Amino acid sequence: MNLITLTTDFGPADWFVGTMKGVILGINPRARMVDLTHGIPPGDIRSAAFALMAACRHFPRGTVHVAVVDPGVGSERAAIVVQTADYFFVGPDNGLLSFALAAERIKTVHRLENRRFFRRDVSRTFHGRDVFAPVAAHLTKGADCRKMGRRAEEMVHLSWPQPAWHGSSIIGEIVYVDHFGNAITNITEGLLDELQGERMWRRQAVKRGKGADSPPPGLRISMPGGRTAPVETCYAGVHAGKPVAVAGSTGFLEIGIHGGHAARRFRLKIGSPVRLG
Amino acid sequence: MNLITLTTDFGPADWFVGTMKGVILGINPRARMVDLTHGIPPGDIRSAAFALMAACRHFPRGTVHVAVVDPGVGSERAAIVVQTADYFFVGPDNGLLSFALAAERIKTVHRLENRRFFRRDVSRTFHGRDVFAPVAAHLTKGADCRKMGRRAEEMVHLSWPQPAWHGSSIIGEIVYVDHFGNAITNITEGLLDELQGERMWRRQAVKRGKGADSPPPGLRISMPGGRTAPVETCYAGVHAGKPVAVAGSTGFLEIGIHGGHAARRFRLKIGSPVRLG
Amino acid sequence: MNLITLTTDFGPADWFVGTMKGVILGINPRARMVDLTHGIPPGDIRSAAFALMAACRHFPRGTVHVAVVDPGVGSERAAIVVQTADYFFVGPDNGLLSFALAAERIKTVHRLENRRFFRRDVSRTFHGRDVFAPVAAHLTKGADCRKMGRRAEEMVHLSWPQPAWHGSSIIGEIVYVDHFGNAITNITEGLLDELQGERMWRRQAVKRGKGADSPPPGLRISMPGGRTAPVETCYAGVHAGKPVAVAGSTGFLEIGIHGGHAARRFRLKIGSPVRLG
Repeated sequence: MNLITLTTDFGPADWFVGTMKGVILGINPRARMVDLTHGIPPGDIRSAAFALMAACRHFPRGTVHVAVVDPGVGSERAAIVVQTADYFFVGPDNGLLSFALAAERIKTVHRLENRRFFRRDVSRTFHGRDVFAPVAAHLTKGADCRKMGRRAEEMVHLSWPQPAWHGSSIIGEIVYVDHFGNAITNITEGLLDELQGERMWRRQAVKRGKGADSPPPGLRISMPGGRTAPVETCYAGVHAGKPVAVAGSTGFLEIGIHGGHAARRFRLKIGSPVRLG
Repeated sequence: MNLITLTTDFGPADWFVGTMKGVILGINPRARMVDLTHGIPPGDIRSAAFALMAACRHFPRGTVHVAVVDPGVGSERAAIVVQTADYFFVGPDNGLLSFALAAERIKTVHRLENRRFFRRDVSRTFHGRDVFAPVAAHLTKGADCRKMGRRAEEMVHLSWPQPAWHGSSIIGEIVYVDHFGNAITNITEGLLDELQGERMWRRQAVKRGKGADSPPPGLRISMPGGRTAPVETCYAGVHAGKPVAVAGSTGFLEIGIHGGHAARRFRLKIGSPVRLG
Repeated sequence: MNLITLTTDFGPADWFVGTMKGVILGINPRARMVDLTHGIPPGDIRSAAFALMAACRHFPRGTVHVAVVDPGVGSERAAIVVQTADYFFVGPDNGLLSFALAAERIKTVHRLENRRFFRRDVSRTFHGRDVFAPVAAHLTKGADCRKMGRRAEEMVHLSWPQPAWHGSSIIGEIVYVDHFGNAITNITEGLLDELQGERMWRRQAVKRGKGADSPPPGLRISMPGGRTAPVETCYAGVHAGKPVAVAGSTGFLEIGIHGGHAARRFRLKIGSPVRLG
């Protein structure tokens, strides 16, 4: 495939990403690189893990996904390459890859130890350039993961906050805030459907009993401070400036404001609790 | 050509742009993508329309221009593909394409309705990934616009503010503010030349009559609050820190500060009135 | 090679970089472009020169490096192309290329004067699009520098602040601040080694004389205001939130905070003095 994606917290200001690409092209001039994002907040492994999970499966089979959010660079933390049924994942072993890997069929996990696949000089501060970029380039040329280091018996995993039923509501939390200020929750579209189905069923049961014909009360999501938003099918389902919850493109329910920045307005951040019911 | 440009308000923080590229490469592995900008302020259709207009004609014939600033995503707003003599334009039908199309010879306009050209699952919030990216990829492989949906009888057009003569001055307004703080007006270089020519003619007429030999008074642009700037041929035509108006690279007169941020200093924004004379 | 790198202060908001790429692809459809950075502060020639120096040698031979931080665009400043043993460098003659060129074996320097290699219409404000992009594209197609204009007898050079010995300390200064807030000094890893070697030697001399066996006192770097940081081998060599100096990936000693933004915390900026000892 020759295709490599890059996910980092390197930001737009410096030469770090460009330099990784230079190193890759020096090893494989046919490599093609796609930036997933370099705008992860510095050191925010959790947001990077979410971004990689949200994007990685939209790439063709054989793609090499490289992620570098690496506050422990130069310390004893391990570096790994993971081969799955469809992709390669390369990065520090700090949990960064774990959300994405949860949906993959893992075949092998190896440590990056064989300096033959690194830049000749390996700095203590920039393994993106000196380790991960050259390893990725070699993978696109067919290098064998098993030659890159010992099998890794275990990996660091970030904990994923599971949503929970509470009576006929679902308790969840914010797991990512995007550029538009949309606050993505851990409540999946599947759970939303389940809750809506249950409500529908109850309502019909009530209706059969009482013969009433009131409109079904729509679901709402509650945020800290008591503010609520209706669940709609798109942002434009409410008037401009109004809050709304929609099933977003990553398969999770997210809270937005039609034409506004929900996270700022409602002070939502990663870990903020929400209730759907 | 295999060439696709991307113009969005997705910003640098998330995986949205990268995901569109993954979808495109999954359909056409030979596609090449160029980012025009992803830094359009969220939902600012007018700035995106200006950016697309300013850039699109610098690309080779056959390029597919995709623009996604789409606050109405998931609602009833239409999506369109426009084939012109030289390019394809793809995006929501909300006026985003209209400034660019004003300079094109339009051949066909079709709605995007045929799900065969979409991702299998189409979300309600991310048509960049699910509709526009795959449509663009199919166009680079020679897909026929006419099979993508019904002919569109009309399109949404943004109004373009026309500059107006007022005595021997021209009244215009700011239509874009760039990264350097340069405030671009709607006064074209052609109008500037016309005004300069008229001044020259008058001056010569006066001179012939009176025999005077004073230097020609240069044109100046006036901003709200009474501040003015001379028209020069380049930013460095004035001392550092001084305001200046120059014919910019998009063919419009723009107000800058040599080494400074004019829009901030003079509180210029889209719609601010100016007078040239 | 067909490979072109781009370094500018154009920022992410506008269409400027994308337009340069369109022009390049119109001349050489096989050109490949890598963004080094477009996040240089507007007009900051010195930071751009540092970035280009830090990145350029990580690219394959034959790469064309284009840099455009060009506050004097449209004035009488010259534009140049420099051929070195390994690369081409293209940009305004304002010192922007000089840090990178200090490490290159220069073969020829020519002015960009021959309009045959420019866009047909050359604006007064955007030579990135109208001069530098087309020149770079022609270079990737094998164009001869000598046909682009007269030989340049001299170039503008930025002064590089040399670190200086002061007793058994080294006096240096900050030369770049990166996205993570790391403040890069002009003290090379070589100088650091030399100082450490001398300390070791002195200590052994003392030890031989006195028979003492105290641990070697580690080097520290001092910042304005009296704050100091130990020299370690990686950021994680100190506790989270603590300052540290490490030999960074560009070969210079840099001051960081493990998990923090050193430049903001310690008010370090380009030119701030430091002392290593």
